Amino acid sequence: MRAVVLCSGGLDSTVAAAEARAAGYELYLLSVNYGQRHAVELARVPEIAAALGAARHLVLDVNLRGIGGSALTDAIPVPKDRSVEAMGAGIPPTYVPARNTLFLALALGWAEVVGAETIYFGANILDYSGYPDCRPEFLRAFEALARVGTKAGVEGRTILIEAPLLRMTKADIIRRGVALGAPLHLTHSCYDPDEMGRACGRCDSCRLRRKGFAEAQVADPASYASEK
Amino acid sequence: MRAVVLCSGGLDSTVAAAEARAAGYELYLLSVNYGQRHAVELARVPEIAAALGAARHLVLDVNLRGIGGSALTDAIPVPKDRSVEAMGAGIPPTYVPARNTLFLALALGWAEVVGAETIYFGANILDYSGYPDCRPEFLRAFEALARVGTKAGVEGRTILIEAPLLRMTKADIIRRGVALGAPLHLTHSCYDPDEMGRACGRCDSCRLRRKGFAEAQVADPASYASEK
Repeated sequence: MRAVVLCSGGLDSTVAAAEARAAGYELYLLSVNYGQRHAVELARVPEIAAALGAARHLVLDVNLRGIGGSALTDAIPVPKDRSVEAMGAGIPPTYVPARNTLFLALALGWAEVVGAETIYFGANILDYSGYPDCRPEFLRAFEALARVGTKAGVEGRTILIEAPLLRMTKADIIRRGVALGAPLHLTHSCYDPDEMGRACGRCDSCRLRRKGFAEAQVADPASYASEK
Repeated sequence: MRAVVLCSGGLDSTVAAAEARAAGYELYLLSVNYGQRHAVELARVPEIAAALGAARHLVLDVNLRGIGGSALTDAIPVPKDRSVEAMGAGIPPTYVPARNTLFLALALGWAEVVGAETIYFGANILDYSGYPDCRPEFLRAFEALARVGTKAGVEGRTILIEAPLLRMTKADIIRRGVALGAPLHLTHSCYDPDEMGRACGRCDSCRLRRKGFAEAQVADPASYASEK
């Protein structure tokens, strides 16, 4: 039983991978280097793969800087010091056009080739409620697409999307990661790390992470450039 | 009025681009270098873009050789000298897992950023009836995905997929291309060109092209390594 797991090196995808392992899947970790500002997180995946005993780890390069249109791939500032309420209002500038459609397309292709029946995806709708491509209706629409658009689907092998963190708070995700023995100490969350790869502590992703660790009463193993 | 056109440098996508131009769209040509055996076709796109007066031409690199599983990206032989009937039976080895999902995902992202309302796609179900990701139900499923999975969709700007060649024979496509003034002389169709970039004349794609030009009674401007 095999699962392709989209793994960015971040907290959520690492816990999603640990969920797949706990469900008995052999892990095929897929990372996408899409020209993101925070490609430093990808450097964590080989160690995460080893810690989880993954069968394979594949990195695919797709340079989305040619498309742009996002604070993560273009010359658009990453918001800092925003309240969680402000983050939740509307679609944030860190939305990357059609990014998750692309990620799932790549995962789908690999799932067909290795014969995986499930794609694990660390999407979450609580913290980033503004991202359209993290919503359950998006995930269901992608499953429908996979059924009609692949050799596997035509042959009756459905490939499903599992998003175990979809409705969990960050604190719940952290607690779950601890319970599953996920290598949280290897994860990176910051959207805008400094030259040394240190987390800024102030972007939406850092703020959600810090709040989550505080609420879960777990020590955050990340090192931050700012104490804010 | 803008359209993103998936343009490989092949016959079908070039005629699809000419259709978009004829419909009054400003053309944003998107080519994907996915590690295909026949990447030589991509070299034709800048001239095709110029001939069609495209507003922009963007090439994105995604190396699908890491995924493999296709005669176009892996060490699987490209079929030669097959009859059209044999090509139509089942899913051919030139099927690239989830390739068109990936292509449309990239086109969707760019369409969002440039404000295009339509994606033109040279999919055809007559000649390659075995490719699941050329079928109308796949295209409709992708539109449904785009509606729920993008900022554009959430804001009510639907992005539609136009596949004007979907039910046309190759001869019809060629006649239509001639009528629209599409630069057919710049197109390349072969799946397995030689080192000089010359078409083999024997793969499914060459055979369909040659048959189409013969039926349309138009001289094929391509040069072939084999007269077969």
